[in-house]
Parts: sequence; structure tokens; C-alpha cells
Amino acid sequence: MEKIKPRTLSGFMELLPPQQVIFDTMSRKLRDSFSLYGFTPLDTPLMEAAEILLAKGGGETEKQVYRIRKGDNDLALRYELTASLAKYVALNSGRLTFPFRRYEIGKVYRGERAQRGRFREFYQADIDIIGDGSLDIINDAEIPSIIYRCFKSFGLERFVININNRKLLGGLFDIVGVGDASVDVMRAVDKLDKIGAEKLSEMLTEEIGVRKEAADEIMAFVTYRGDPFEMMDRYRGKNETFDAGADELGVVKRHITGFGVPETHFRINPSIARGLDYYTGTVYETIMTDYPQIGSVCGGGRYDNLAEYYTDKKLPGVGISMGLTRLFHILQEQGLLNDEVLTAPADVLIIPMTEDLSHSVALATSMRAEGLRVQIHNESRKFKVKLSYADKQGIPFVVFMGEDEINGGMITVKDMLDGKQTTASAGILTAGICEKVADLRNKAPIRENS
Amino acid sequence: MEKIKPRTLSGFMELLPPQQVIFDTMSRKLRDSFSLYGFTPLDTPLMEAAEILLAKGGGETEKQVYRIRKGDNDLALRYELTASLAKYVALNSGRLTFPFRRYEIGKVYRGERAQRGRFREFYQADIDIIGDGSLDIINDAEIPSIIYRCFKSFGLERFVININNRKLLGGLFDIVGVGDASVDVMRAVDKLDKIGAEKLSEMLTEEIGVRKEAADEIMAFVTYRGDPFEMMDRYRGKNETFDAGADELGVVKRHITGFGVPETHFRINPSIARGLDYYTGTVYETIMTDYPQIGSVCGGGRYDNLAEYYTDKKLPGVGISMGLTRLFHILQEQGLLNDEVLTAPADVLIIPMTEDLSHSVALATSMRAEGLRVQIHNESRKFKVKLSYADKQGIPFVVFMGEDEINGGMITVKDMLDGKQTTASAGILTAGICEKVADLRNKAPIRENS
Repeated sequence: MEKIKPRTLSGFMELLPPQQVIFDTMSRKLRDSFSLYGFTPLDTPLMEAAEILLAKGGGETEKQVYRIRKGDNDLALRYELTASLAKYVALNSGRLTFPFRRYEIGKVYRGERAQRGRFREFYQADIDIIGDGSLDIINDAEIPSIIYRCFKSFGLERFVININNRKLLGGLFDIVGVGDASVDVMRAVDKLDKIGAEKLSEMLTEEIGVRKEAADEIMAFVTYRGDPFEMMDRYRGKNETFDAGADELGVVKRHITGFGVPETHFRINPSIARGLDYYTGTVYETIMTDYPQIGSVCGGGRYDNLAEYYTDKKLPGVGISMGLTRLFHILQEQGLLNDEVLTAPADVLIIPMTEDLSHSVALATSMRAEGLRVQIHNESRKFKVKLSYADKQGIPFVVFMGEDEINGGMITVKDMLDGKQTTASAGILTAGICEKVADLRNKAPIRENS
Repeated sequence: MEKIKPRTLSGFMELLPPQQVIFDTMSRKLRDSFSLYGFTPLDTPLMEAAEILLAKGGGETEKQVYRIRKGDNDLALRYELTASLAKYVALNSGRLTFPFRRYEIGKVYRGERAQRGRFREFYQADIDIIGDGSLDIINDAEIPSIIYRCFKSFGLERFVININNRKLLGGLFDIVGVGDASVDVMRAVDKLDKIGAEKLSEMLTEEIGVRKEAADEIMAFVTYRGDPFEMMDRYRGKNETFDAGADELGVVKRHITGFGVPETHFRINPSIARGLDYYTGTVYETIMTDYPQIGSVCGGGRYDNLAEYYTDKKLPGVGISMGLTRLFHILQEQGLLNDEVLTAPADVLIIPMTEDLSHSVALATSMRAEGLRVQIHNESRKFKVKLSYADKQGIPFVVFMGEDEINGGMITVKDMLDGKQTTASAGILTAGICEKVADLRNKAPIRENS
């Protein structure tokens, strides 16, 4: 028979078992963290009617959407999770209670040109809090603590959450008088960390055509290194939008440590704007201290209206999104996956040494009842090969079940980490294995270089 | 702005939050069960090159495949998980250790005509054990105990796992002399439970053209109600394939209770064949006792060669597949979702009664540190509306944080189940809530009618 060359599409992450275990651990830790903040899990379809997904019009993104025609239907794979959420909330608004807190961790699709570190299929992990008509600012103050908990649960320590409010910038632009160029100025300012102050200043005056004095004032504001609230006080009372932004940012700042984020892990940063026009208030970006060039690994913000394309209901919200596949790829490339994590498919490998398997089977069953993950290896292979099967996969314990053990009512356990071999009753040894395995399971998925 | 009507494609299951929580609980219980048997999680792409997915040729199934053209690429969404596994194993065989045990719980796509209870996007949960060259029969004996554990963990009790071996039937057909009609006869016999003995007998002689005597012998074999091994003994020594099948089924029978399946929950059933030509030995079907008309809700079997389209390597395997979305849909329709399950997004709702939120924030943070899922409700709504927010979602505890509480260093907790209200120190009340929530979390997702 002619063979077909097995291959996985480029831009589609497919992991070997040990890496998959670490990926799944990160995903589980996200679920656990989101749950602590009262978010309910959703699982929306990956495919929608094209008109639904493309409701807001995508420009560049629209070109990347995978379209599917099936009969008369014009379908598309989702390229983000927000459109699905908007549709879901509009469709079910009568059956949901607001504020509605949901998380979704799911695959999205973008047919981008394949590039190193760019994925066509990737996981996004999103949380959003949707209000009915209004949404209290305390929700914005809570979001950074969710980001903080998620990254800490991965085992990461060296990251900073940058926080700003777009009303501050919008108000400032009005005060200094940039006129219609406000959107362009916002986008330019957002690039400060990438391009530096000199380049930004040039961009404002030469490309966008902002007056020199106005540009200088904007530059002074976004590059100010002192207490940002002192800077804000200088502009208080001149513009309502500015004042609202300063007030909101004040509430966020006041409660953020109460929500559990230490001073070391957040920064009120007046230059953060997020590219998307979508955001209207608080904005967030998370930077890994050792890898600033990667940009934000978890960002989001406040928006005025989630589902305006589908409903007249006003649904303001605040949310964040994490590109989990990309983050995992970066951590793997940087060698930060913790190699002490128990990635083996089993805790115990039982090797039967007699023809009668009933003792091995009974032992497997009783160990599973204690919560241990057990495999029996009864293939026709040499003993050495079976031992190396455990070794290669990192299975921490191997049990030998021979005539002597069966006759003596004992089992022999080899600890694959220290090589020690012990013969004793199954009950005693199982308890010992349970204890050691519990320790192994507690390792964080990521370990930063120290 | 003109609105777009929000809708979800027909045949795509999208759940409301409480049902989603139950679905996710079932999915998590599957993962836990599979893990106890040493299966490693895989997460393969939903999209593959069409040539990969359609390697084995699909006939009817091929018409249902969602195809995507993107530039020059002919892509397709997977319609089952097996092709992806075959490709994965062929692609990575040098980096995997065999026997290779993997599970995958993922979405698959079939563009079927929409029908009640038929889904176009649905979850399959698959486990497979893949051997390198050979695979010991003890693996086949272990599979029913995995099915048993999965269903028990859902809270189901009334189900039976039917087990057979296709070599028995194949051997029998040779012995009684059905000639080339063997495949047709196998397919017909598989329908016994659906169409009954009379119809089957007619089908064998009239439609397929089996001699009357041969048909009678087949009918006697597959409808025998006594000990199937006694029946098998009558044919022993006449045909090698038959004898191999009887031996294999003997090993499965010998160890199945040792693996933890009680006599009440399995049946050696000589009429089970599974439709697919793919299977070559042991076959499984799981029938819900109260809903036999639904057919098998978890089936599978032994096959000779997983990846013959991609590699010369011989990779025999045994596995099962569960249509999780379909099963969930059935259980929901039958009213079997356990309404005692805690489906609320939070364990505790904190209602601040003062302008200063710092005490509520601090309480939320300390309760989360204890593992409780907490929301703060500070929207501008009436007190009654906030209480009903908890009630509607089934949040079991509400905390009031007023002046009196703050000044007295206390909190007031309302138990929403019994309506009782208690004021005491946060530490004491938090401990009590933790205990009660742990109980609520232990409920099985499904509750059978008694």
C-alpha cells in the first residue's frame, strides 16, 4: 500500500506527552484561578455563521479568518473569543444574571502567514465581567489580582502588571488640543515602550502633525517617572473625561493591594493605551520582567458596550485575554518548563514476573482505589526493556510481582529516583508511594532561572 | 445601527452556565478516570491536511467532512479522533514509548443533516493503547474496568458492558460455511438487538443468501442464553480463529472482576460485533439498562494496525470512544442531571453595605486564600436584587458587610439553603462555609431515577 507522509500543519502546535502535561497543568491552574473569582466556564462553538463573527468588521483580521462553505451556509472559525461571548450574551440575556462573569479557554484560528512563534490554531484564555447598563469600577480593581494569581500559580515571579485609563489620555489630548488626531495619537503613544521617547515625539509632530507644544506636554505626561497621581493633579478640573479617568484609576490603585497584588507587581503607567479602539477606560498589560521585548502576555481593559452589533441593551464590561499557546511557546523556548514536574503517564508501573496475572491485576486495582495512576506492563519484552520503559517516561515507581512476592504476601518496589528497592506489604508500600507522589504533583509547571 | 440577529448554528451545542458546569464535571471525571489507568493526555489540532484525515477513505463519512480551502491548501476539520492519533503516532513513533496509552477529549465535526439529538460539533472522549508489533490481551481485559469507573464516577449505576470477540464470529462463519458473505453476516448479526431474532434470521437467509442450516447454527450461537463459554466449547478445535477468539475472551473474562467490574455490570455477549470492519478481536458496547433503544453509549475494540496508511510499522491497539456531547444530551433530556450539584459560579457573594469597600475586599481575598470562590456585588442595585442575584444562581452563602459588622470585627453570613443568618468572626464563619461547600462539591453530576 502506498503510504501518506504523516505531517501536522505548520502553525499548529502539537506537543509530545511531557510538554502536553505541562500545558494542561497551566490550563488547569487558569481554571482554578478564574473560579476563585466567581467566573463560570463557557464553551462556545468554534464555528459560527460568518455574519456573526464578522459583525464588527475586521479589516486585517478578516483576511485571516478561515471561511467554510457547506451547502448554502457561509461559516467561519472564530479568530477570538469576544464575538462568541457577545453573541452568547445577546442571545441569552434574559436567562443570565448580571454582572455576568465568565471564562473561556478555547482554540481560535487565524490563517496568518506562518512565522516562528506565530500560530494558526492557538488557545486564548479570556475572562470578562459584563454589567447590565452599568458596571462598578471595583471590578476593574479586581482584575489585576486575577492576573497576578494566574502567573504566580504557573510558578512565575518576575512580571509586572501595567495599568492605565484611556480616559486620562483622551482627556489630556483634549486639554492640550490635538483635535481630530486623538485616535492616531492614542495609537502612537501606545508604542512608547517599543520605539522610545525620541521616536514617539518625532512621530507626534511630524507624522501626525501635533503642535510642538502639545506634543511636548503629552511626552512629559507619558514619560513622567514620579508618582503618576501627582502628575494627574496638575490637570485636575480642566476636563471631565480626564477627571473621570483619574478618579477611576484612583479607585483601582486604592484597592489593588487589598485584592492581593504586592506593590512590586503592578505599576500605574500613563503610557499604556492598548491598540484596540474598543477600550474606553481602564487598560492592562502584563510584561515579563526578563523578556520585555515579547510585549504584553496578558492584557485587556474596560469597554462600553459588548454586544452593540446584536442588541440595543447596553452591556459594559471589563476583561482580559491571555494567549496561552504563545505564552507556553515562549516559556518552552526560554527553557523555563520545570523539568521536576511529574509528566509521566503513571505513578506506578507493575511488572508481573509470573504467568498468573491475578495478583498484579488485584494490586493495580487496589492502588488505583488509593488514587495512584497505575500501568501493568505484560508485553513480551525483556525485563530490562520494561524497566527502561518506566525510566524513559519518568514513571517514579516500579513494582515487581514475582513468585517470592506472591508467596510471601509482599510486593517489591523500586524507587526510580534513588534506585532503592524495598520488599514489604502492599499496604505499607502503597501508603509510602502515595505520600511521595503527592509531593511530586505539587511542583509548579514553570521554573524561572535564578 | 442595524442589528444582526444573534444565533448559534443548529447542531452546535451551547449550554447555559449551570449545564456547562455539569458537562465540565463529567469531562473532568473522565480525565481523572483515564489518568488512573496511566493514559497521557493529547491535544491534537482540529484541522489537518485533507489527505491525512481522509487517508482511509470515508464513504458516507467523507461527505460530512467540513473542508476548508485557504490559498493552495486543502484542509479539513477532523470528524473523529482516530485519524489524528494514527498520524501522531506515525509522526512521533521514534519519540514515544510503547505500549503508548493516550486519551483525548476533543471536539469533532460532521456536517450531517441536522436532526434532534444529532450534533455537527461534538465532543468525543477516546482512549487507546497502542503496541509496537504486538499488544498483550491483558490490555483488553482492563478496558471494561475503565468504562465501569467512568460511568460510576458520573453517578450512573444502571448500565451493562457487553463484550465479545470478532474472531469467535469470524471463526464460526467459517465453520458453518458462509463463504464470501462473512462481512455482510457480521454486520447483520450486529443488528440483533435492534431488529430481533426473527428479522435477523430472515435477513441472513433471504437477503444475504446464507444456507438455512448455516443460518440456524449462527442464530443458535448468537441467541444462546446460557453460559457462552459452554457454547464455545462445542466448536473448539474446529477452527484456529475461533479458538483464538475463545481463548482471548477467556482471558478477558478471567481478569475483568479483578480489575474491579462486578458481575452485574458486564456480559459476554456473542452477538455484539460493532459495525466497523476496523475491529479484529475484542469488541465492547455499553448499554444503559433503562434506555436500550439509545444503543451503545461507549464502545470500541481491538484492531490490528492503527497507522497502516502512514507507516509500515505494525501498531496493534485496543480502545474505546464515548460520544460525550450525545451522552450529555440524552441524560439532560431524560432529566437525569443532578439538580443538587453546585453549579453556581461562586460559593460566597459579599454584599458591601458601606461606601468604603476595603473590608469587603480584604474579606474576599482571605476567603479566596482558603479556596472559596468569591464575588463582591457592589453594583448600584437594591439590596433585594443583590440577594436575588445569589438566589437565582444558587450561590449558597451571602455575606453582609455593614457598619456594625466592620465596627465589631465581625461578618454576617446568610445560608441561602436554610435561610439562617449568623454574625461571628470571619475566621470561624469561613471555616464553616468551607466545610459545607466541600460537601456540596462532592455530588455526582448525574442522578438516576430511583
